[in-house]
Amino acid sequence: MVKRKKTKSRPTQKPKKNSGFPNPKPVFFAKKPLSPIHAEGEIKLRKQVQNLSYVFNPSSIAIVGASRNPSKIGNAILRNLIHGGYSGQIYPINPNADIVENLRAYPSLSQVGKKIDCAIICIHAKDVPHALQQAAGAKIPSAVIISGGFAEIGNVHGEMQIKQIANKHDMAVIGPNCMGVLNPQNKVDSVFLPLHKMGRPGAGSISFISQSGAVGGCIVDLAGAQRVGMAKFISYGNGTVINETDLLSYLMHDEKTKSIISYIEGVNNGREFMHAASSLTRKKPLVVLKAGKTSAGSQAARSHTASLSGSAEVFSAAMEQCGAIQAQNLEELFDLAKIFEIPAFLGSKIAVLTNGGGNGVLAADAIEREHLRPSIFSAKTIKQLKKILPPTAHALNPLDIIGDADSARYEACLQLLLEDENVDAIVAIALMQTASLDSSIVNVIARAAHSGKKPIIVVSTGGEYTQLHKKILDDYGVPTFDSPSSAISALAKALKYNIYKHTKP
Amino acid sequence: MVKRKKTKSRPTQKPKKNSGFPNPKPVFFAKKPLSPIHAEGEIKLRKQVQNLSYVFNPSSIAIVGASRNPSKIGNAILRNLIHGGYSGQIYPINPNADIVENLRAYPSLSQVGKKIDCAIICIHAKDVPHALQQAAGAKIPSAVIISGGFAEIGNVHGEMQIKQIANKHDMAVIGPNCMGVLNPQNKVDSVFLPLHKMGRPGAGSISFISQSGAVGGCIVDLAGAQRVGMAKFISYGNGTVINETDLLSYLMHDEKTKSIISYIEGVNNGREFMHAASSLTRKKPLVVLKAGKTSAGSQAARSHTASLSGSAEVFSAAMEQCGAIQAQNLEELFDLAKIFEIPAFLGSKIAVLTNGGGNGVLAADAIEREHLRPSIFSAKTIKQLKKILPPTAHALNPLDIIGDADSARYEACLQLLLEDENVDAIVAIALMQTASLDSSIVNVIARAAHSGKKPIIVVSTGGEYTQLHKKILDDYGVPTFDSPSSAISALAKALKYNIYKHTKP
Repeated sequence: MVKRKKTKSRPTQKPKKNSGFPNPKPVFFAKKPLSPIHAEGEIKLRKQVQNLSYVFNPSSIAIVGASRNPSKIGNAILRNLIHGGYSGQIYPINPNADIVENLRAYPSLSQVGKKIDCAIICIHAKDVPHALQQAAGAKIPSAVIISGGFAEIGNVHGEMQIKQIANKHDMAVIGPNCMGVLNPQNKVDSVFLPLHKMGRPGAGSISFISQSGAVGGCIVDLAGAQRVGMAKFISYGNGTVINETDLLSYLMHDEKTKSIISYIEGVNNGREFMHAASSLTRKKPLVVLKAGKTSAGSQAARSHTASLSGSAEVFSAAMEQCGAIQAQNLEELFDLAKIFEIPAFLGSKIAVLTNGGGNGVLAADAIEREHLRPSIFSAKTIKQLKKILPPTAHALNPLDIIGDADSARYEACLQLLLEDENVDAIVAIALMQTASLDSSIVNVIARAAHSGKKPIIVVSTGGEYTQLHKKILDDYGVPTFDSPSSAISALAKALKYNIYKHTKP
Repeated sequence: MVKRKKTKSRPTQKPKKNSGFPNPKPVFFAKKPLSPIHAEGEIKLRKQVQNLSYVFNPSSIAIVGASRNPSKIGNAILRNLIHGGYSGQIYPINPNADIVENLRAYPSLSQVGKKIDCAIICIHAKDVPHALQQAAGAKIPSAVIISGGFAEIGNVHGEMQIKQIANKHDMAVIGPNCMGVLNPQNKVDSVFLPLHKMGRPGAGSISFISQSGAVGGCIVDLAGAQRVGMAKFISYGNGTVINETDLLSYLMHDEKTKSIISYIEGVNNGREFMHAASSLTRKKPLVVLKAGKTSAGSQAARSHTASLSGSAEVFSAAMEQCGAIQAQNLEELFDLAKIFEIPAFLGSKIAVLTNGGGNGVLAADAIEREHLRPSIFSAKTIKQLKKILPPTAHALNPLDIIGDADSARYEACLQLLLEDENVDAIVAIALMQTASLDSSIVNVIARAAHSGKKPIIVVSTGGEYTQLHKKILDDYGVPTFDSPSSAISALAKALKYNIYKHTKP
């Protein structure tokens, strides 16, 4: 078992402000050159981290601060759980009400008298330690503390109380000052944003950890709208008890999680984080969007410029060494979240199939820019293509099957590319605007992708009709992208990871 | 009047394939270093280019090939014109029908006997020259030839016939082998893609010229869906008569057009194009997405690699010299189309207003990356901000007014930034997911933007609720972006253009 060093709280750390969303923590990498990180076997989870299972899969949830007032967070969370379809037991805790949202309410956690797996706490900061102590007394193994008002506004004492209680009782505590967690598999939902304002993703294989609740909310909302499934979403806020390193370690063992994306402003302990990341990437891809990279950004992240200058480069180098994939912005983070839904591939020969010439040219540009290679079709493929294509189309890559292509022509050509051994992955550009390409193209592409013969990703750019068809493809687990360049950039990063995983020492 | 050199057709140019969409032409820049281009006064339009007014503002349109068969392009165009709301006269030309779509049809152009401003031609290639000759005979000053089957498949003779007829009669001819044109102001619409598959943008100030019909369709569709208004859209296909240079020259004089975006694979005559671009950018911004930039892309564009290698760099340098702004991909092209809706500004001090901390950090990163500067608020602003903000929020830039901000707090802070002389432009991040930010934020931001005091652009990332509010803002002429990085990248390019325009020799 790998021992975790106790990290002292930094004396230089200024009080954080309460943004309603979590605030950054300083990056903690040493300034001396990094020695190589070796992931020596499995990371074993200490009991407290194992107890995260109760956060994600509780058979019963208590909401401390479950209010009857619809403008309160405690009411929103209760409503979201009920209307979102959570099927476990829900115990509202409210000393001033017998019934909240048609459920029997209890004055305190200790008075429920039934097994509770997770306490969601959304009351005033000063009352949080007492509630957490009660949870410990009631043998509740996990908690999500939504409430802000701790270290981020200088209340270090309150935060230390949380830490001590949690550590003493091996409680897995998310937060404080966080936006909550989601597990779409069982509709566990402690995110306090209203369902009509922030969509929830369906069940899928991507897990997302975010230091910022706001950034997390944006990506989760996008995933919901674009039918990208998630395994878990965790806004971890101040990360007082369970931090980013713990979450990576936990998700490494989580069977539902096939890939992890993360938004991070700073990490508590760089060496531990690297160790966890390095172990994780041997099994699953990890995508990191590091914010506060520039001095302006770092300043904005309220960290000490002096002590942190240069740390962004160290972080980047460290992530590179760990085999983590770095995203440059929100769009890329979202694109990279999707790309790992395709089967792994190790070759760089990319075939492009398109029903519009210009988009094929843009794809060819992107392939070269990303240091991939255009497939050179085999003689057999070319021969077969010539039988299928109209005389005015060329059997070349990018394969432009021209604007009057229908689903049948698209499918026949796609099949030939799937069979060609000179093709490692396929970028299928489907321009939905043409009169001849009807909705059946969605089935054609999904069928080809599900054959498992080759990775296929889809590019479609356009308005409502196009978006509808993209959603269906995303729902089928075929990742779609807005442009050839974003698709091929993501594809290149997936290949880089696959090669890393395949060749790592 | 600037004389146009006749350019010989390149003997090395291979026949293009018929993709249903236009094919690339080689870039024609000399390999020797470019001598500076000086835009010596106004470009005067020759009669033939002036006649483009009849393409964009016809009081009457004839459709040669107006079919009763709904699967035919000639039927689609007729239906699109009728259902799109074009209010001028429409004359279907069809020798086999008396009535098409409830309109009286005529056997030929010469038998209409009434004034026709524009002939849209969508019949077999072999019949096109005859129809164009008839149009000339009927004194029709303009035509859009949708039909393919000319130089792109080796039918150079047919294409030369078109050129000769058009030149002889000073006809402004778009195409052949094009997707048509749009003028949202008067609902002129010769694009043959169905209305339900490709949305049409409303009236606006951006004009878009595209060598590729497919790429053009994608961007127009996006503009329609996201409520970005357009002045004109022109898919110019083979550019046989009216080419990209003519279109730039025409749009330079077009009062409705405030900015121009373009997708170009190659230009006919580099020097002429540069001259037009250089004159244009003294009045209006020009955005260029050049495809076929890499050798793979260039090969995909069916041009000779040998003769064109290196031309992309020359093209880039030439565009830089002309003050044109280069887009790297479709997303950026679309982002840059929007950015010129804001008032011009010449300073680089950017203020960021946000209701979510993480997005502010990302914005600060992007500001530094794009070589802009974060505004340092004046003492007066800071004093006023402190009165408005809750004690836990800091009066710093990025200005995080924290997650419980409502429209009133947002508006009060926005007003202070508008008044601060240390602020040159404002990036307003509005995360719609929070419970406290209601729909009135849209009015708050639009009102501030319309005050004209400072340029304001908006960042919102999210799903359906967010998209709805972004559409409203775009409809109000306040450009919205998906992420801090895309917004600030576009802002930096707008500033670069403004400085160019302000300081050009």
